[in-house]
Amino acid sequence: MRFHKALQQRWREQETLLCVGLDPEPAAFPAHLQGRRDAIFTFCSAIVEATADLVCAFKPQIAHFAALRAEETLERLIAHIHEKHPGVPVILDAKRGDIGSTSRHYATEAFERYCADALTLNPYLGHDSIAPFLERADKGIILLCRTSNPGSSNFQTLNCGGTPLYLHVAETIARDWNVHGNCALVTGATWPQELGQIRARVGPMPLLVPGIGVQGGDLNAVLHYGLDEDHAGLMISASRAIDYAGSGEDFAEAARRAARDLRERINRYRRLS
Amino acid sequence: MRFHKALQQRWREQETLLCVGLDPEPAAFPAHLQGRRDAIFTFCSAIVEATADLVCAFKPQIAHFAALRAEETLERLIAHIHEKHPGVPVILDAKRGDIGSTSRHYATEAFERYCADALTLNPYLGHDSIAPFLERADKGIILLCRTSNPGSSNFQTLNCGGTPLYLHVAETIARDWNVHGNCALVTGATWPQELGQIRARVGPMPLLVPGIGVQGGDLNAVLHYGLDEDHAGLMISASRAIDYAGSGEDFAEAARRAARDLRERINRYRRLS
Repeated sequence: MRFHKALQQRWREQETLLCVGLDPEPAAFPAHLQGRRDAIFTFCSAIVEATADLVCAFKPQIAHFAALRAEETLERLIAHIHEKHPGVPVILDAKRGDIGSTSRHYATEAFERYCADALTLNPYLGHDSIAPFLERADKGIILLCRTSNPGSSNFQTLNCGGTPLYLHVAETIARDWNVHGNCALVTGATWPQELGQIRARVGPMPLLVPGIGVQGGDLNAVLHYGLDEDHAGLMISASRAIDYAGSGEDFAEAARRAARDLRERINRYRRLS
Repeated sequence: MRFHKALQQRWREQETLLCVGLDPEPAAFPAHLQGRRDAIFTFCSAIVEATADLVCAFKPQIAHFAALRAEETLERLIAHIHEKHPGVPVILDAKRGDIGSTSRHYATEAFERYCADALTLNPYLGHDSIAPFLERADKGIILLCRTSNPGSSNFQTLNCGGTPLYLHVAETIARDWNVHGNCALVTGATWPQELGQIRARVGPMPLLVPGIGVQGGDLNAVLHYGLDEDHAGLMISASRAIDYAGSGEDFAEAARRAARDLRERINRYRRLS
């Protein structure tokens, strides 16, 4: 499966721009799962089953597993998604980045070990740190550009010769790094106008947009500034707002309702615009 | 153990600025270890035993373990260093960085799970992404500034209002982030003059300097520009040049010789300057 192609297929055929993040936090699990040996897998796979037909991608966040010594569960979870939902790409959210010789090992971790279809990466170290990923034409290489958090204004908006750093990053990736057409960018929903500037620079490159939901990004503004010419081009990511929509035994149904509502709000805007 | 204090003690009492990186690459292991079940631990712990009295810190690089599904070995290795060499701090080289709620999980991974004394981090996401680490006053928070690789010139040297980005990063960290005096910076040996500019901005803040050895950094220039007023302040990091100094059954002795030579070259310069 080629990531960008799989994504476009989900956008079109499944009519969904929604990306569901899988962020296990055992303390927030429903009571009936608390303390159960396989709680992490049970919780995450239930969210997957409840939402798979509604998403363009799943995005497990690796720190949530690593803090729990649950790497094996993450392997199983991704294998489970591939097996049960073969058309749904999996983004490993890990924000890696290191010098080239080390990046090869991170590429092995993400693509051979976890069998992810895409990986989030930090561009600060520059091209050679990303090269071992970029050469994987079948994989999605999703680079941080303008992140959703408040601190992203510390450096990302610095004025570099009339252009903010995040636009330099976007332009450099679109112009020099995207040789295999497998790049994408992370642009937070909390800065919709800047998302529009990025869209204008990178054309149809997919944008992964966290920050709707708990972080308070404005969905309509994101869609206004971020949709591409085909009324797609976005992976609108929600994690906590879906995973923890409910807290009872029906948590998976609550997650499904939250996912369906968000997908529908997105599609309503797309139909009207 | 407070990281910065432990480091200063090693600099002074053990007279060493050398940081040995632990980067297991099974394909490069000596023949007699090839295929052995516990080869990674055997190899790394042998390097540790052979060099512990010569180093100011050990620095395992996590991708090398993650690519091999060897997280448990990394836990054991760090526990082994703490047990056998209680004065030697361990830097987990992971270059993490994510929004604040996720960073807490990375902090748990590094400090609770692996019991590292310090962690390398990527500053691109800004202050709130690093806050969960900064509040750990006992830990070393080592932030990428001007990295050793060629691609570091893609963004790190961009002119931001007359100041290159990496100096903005250095100044911001020294001025605003180092409230608990637990910060340090990664500054590559391949850019010694810029290391001097950073030193001038951050005073006695410790600098972790990779890029000597395989990457070809100029040791004397690094020491000229990088030493602080006490003729210390640096963690000069070497990984492959030590770990793979030999390839036979005597690989640990070869590693010791390489470490001793590098420490001695560093100290010769310090004595003469």
